[in-house]
Amino acid sequence: MEVVADEFASSQATNDQDYVVTPWQVKGNVDYDKLVEQFGTSRITDELLHKFKKITGEIHPYLKRKIFYSHRDLDWILNRYEAGEEFFLYTGRGPSENVHLGHLIPWIFTKYLQDKFGAELYFQFTDDEKFLLGTKPSIDSAKKSAYDNLLDLIALGFDPKKTFVFIDTEYMETMYPIAARIAKHITLSMEKSIFGFENSTNVGMIFFPTIEAATCFLPSVLKGKNIPCLIPAAIDQDPYWRGIAREVAPKLGFYKPAQIHCKFMPGLGQGGKMSASQPETAIFTTDSPNVVEKKVLSSFTGGRATVEEQRKLGAQADICPVYHYYYYLFEENDKELERIYNDCTSGTLLCGDCKAMLAERVKEYVIKHQEKREKAREIVDEFIVADVRGGLKKRSTISRG
Amino acid sequence: MEVVADEFASSQATNDQDYVVTPWQVKGNVDYDKLVEQFGTSRITDELLHKFKKITGEIHPYLKRKIFYSHRDLDWILNRYEAGEEFFLYTGRGPSENVHLGHLIPWIFTKYLQDKFGAELYFQFTDDEKFLLGTKPSIDSAKKSAYDNLLDLIALGFDPKKTFVFIDTEYMETMYPIAARIAKHITLSMEKSIFGFENSTNVGMIFFPTIEAATCFLPSVLKGKNIPCLIPAAIDQDPYWRGIAREVAPKLGFYKPAQIHCKFMPGLGQGGKMSASQPETAIFTTDSPNVVEKKVLSSFTGGRATVEEQRKLGAQADICPVYHYYYYLFEENDKELERIYNDCTSGTLLCGDCKAMLAERVKEYVIKHQEKREKAREIVDEFIVADVRGGLKKRSTISRG
Repeated sequence: MEVVADEFASSQATNDQDYVVTPWQVKGNVDYDKLVEQFGTSRITDELLHKFKKITGEIHPYLKRKIFYSHRDLDWILNRYEAGEEFFLYTGRGPSENVHLGHLIPWIFTKYLQDKFGAELYFQFTDDEKFLLGTKPSIDSAKKSAYDNLLDLIALGFDPKKTFVFIDTEYMETMYPIAARIAKHITLSMEKSIFGFENSTNVGMIFFPTIEAATCFLPSVLKGKNIPCLIPAAIDQDPYWRGIAREVAPKLGFYKPAQIHCKFMPGLGQGGKMSASQPETAIFTTDSPNVVEKKVLSSFTGGRATVEEQRKLGAQADICPVYHYYYYLFEENDKELERIYNDCTSGTLLCGDCKAMLAERVKEYVIKHQEKREKAREIVDEFIVADVRGGLKKRSTISRG
Repeated sequence: MEVVADEFASSQATNDQDYVVTPWQVKGNVDYDKLVEQFGTSRITDELLHKFKKITGEIHPYLKRKIFYSHRDLDWILNRYEAGEEFFLYTGRGPSENVHLGHLIPWIFTKYLQDKFGAELYFQFTDDEKFLLGTKPSIDSAKKSAYDNLLDLIALGFDPKKTFVFIDTEYMETMYPIAARIAKHITLSMEKSIFGFENSTNVGMIFFPTIEAATCFLPSVLKGKNIPCLIPAAIDQDPYWRGIAREVAPKLGFYKPAQIHCKFMPGLGQGGKMSASQPETAIFTTDSPNVVEKKVLSSFTGGRATVEEQRKLGAQADICPVYHYYYYLFEENDKELERIYNDCTSGTLLCGDCKAMLAERVKEYVIKHQEKREKAREIVDEFIVADVRGGLKKRSTISRG
């Protein structure tokens, strides 16, 4: 679902800002506050955090730190939950060569929600999207990446009993009829205004948004009852939910899917999110410890030109990816994080030491993740829903038991 | 595949003609010669008929009578066949409440081609199209019609070993990846110019043409080798093959599908093709003998105002649907047909007698068809390819034998 491509970007960018956020492109220094207004989402208020605490007994660091900071109908879904109505989780990925740490953020939080709310997760790999966009040369290569990326997902510890993974092109007998019901209510002009599609857009991409939206209603269709849906995902995916799924839901008699939106983990360069297209500034889950160390030690920082200057003025943690790595993933303890921030900005902690400390933590994280990733290979089939393709077998030859 | 709907008609009609032929609408008195020029197809020449005779030992009445009159690459496919390369047949139907005799014409000829060339037939029911166009209120109702219409197909005697029937929404795991490969090469502007789609068109209809085109390559994909395709169908479907399948074939490494096009059997009213939307002038395969008789006896004819006038001037067989019924389906013997024509135009045969004779033949045909149609129920599964939907079963629970 998260992709970098130039095709549809131009029509979404406006002149008075230096960033672009669409489902296919995120670039520049994103103004997250402005995005909330632009997309018409809501900020997660203190009141909402208290409701979370009331239910889960705690406030997850991602919520406290406003990494997950925006939502649609989160209050509604928590109220429903308190009243005894369970919801399911939906998130996904546009499969690509490498999963990086930034991709893990929404998944880690999704796993947390699954644990705390006992919720089923429906996870969609959009191999068709990657092929239709042209970021993958063939469906097979996109599918291959999906199977590889899936190992990262499983490594995070999702409950196989409650997790249903599918790859679009292998699950279309189930998905297409739902997508068609959605598509009937979505005109070309609606999609043009949501996604900026043009006459040169291929007709596969024009149909695709209905497939991504279909998962919002999948469990309701399969189980024959209306089940609330909560989508934890980066905020760039919002147009799908705002423009397609939420638009169509009442017409099909389904609940509008609720969302909880996160920010993008930054890359190790100066500004911008972590991106596989800049591999030197992204930590991939399959990077060797040596590579991880090299990347972290080569990171841009908020440091000053000289040690003397830094001792005097302190460094700039707020613009420093190294600090943000602690913030996002490598220092859960708020007091410790505060100490790093203070030591940095007061000039006590120098960038070299700070990077060396982070490098150790990232290496340790990646090594452990890779162990779990290898073990995941054995249980892939416990996550993927069946894809028994019909081929040319006649029904009369198939056991219907 | 053959549908009557107004949505896309306007952009296809031109001012200097009084008919409209699009995949979704056929109306007025079609000028078939003009269509050949308009669509850029080729007429079936005497040379081609001789080639047919050389291979099959005969010339089918539909060819002799130019009911099948136009083609693309038919010469190529017959040459290939003579050189030892087999082809497959592809045709289909947009399922609707009732199959009428006009629908049977291309199927009867397809069955003949299957017998003579030993060719496999791939038959597509486009339930999705009917739903997306709005002629069916739900996918389920379109699917229900498909299962019903299938009985008419089977009743014609197709070889179950060589006939593969599928209903789009039940076969998407196989079809969608092929459609996506096609869709990647088809832009919105291409489709706009082929089909006249507009901003108000729903995005399902915009994707749909790639699904209809996908069947042209289905056996090649499933069998892993390039197999020539011959599509026997009414000429209104040509835009799919011309604009989508033939356009994309070389880009995907497939043969361009060949086609053989038929005219429309007329309705029993004055002018126009047989159409389910004018039930009083269409003979449905499920009509009771009484209803058949009533419809035929109420037919418009080429008769004169009075018996005297008709005895003197003769009737006008060329504009008479009753005569056309003999021509299309109820008098295979050319000499007998000629006799009817001469007796009609010379004033010997009066319309009442002619209609009564036809009514008997149509009744007899329909009664026999209905018997075969009932027997067909028992062997449906020998025709339909498997549609084992995945649902939420995990792969680990599925036997992969």
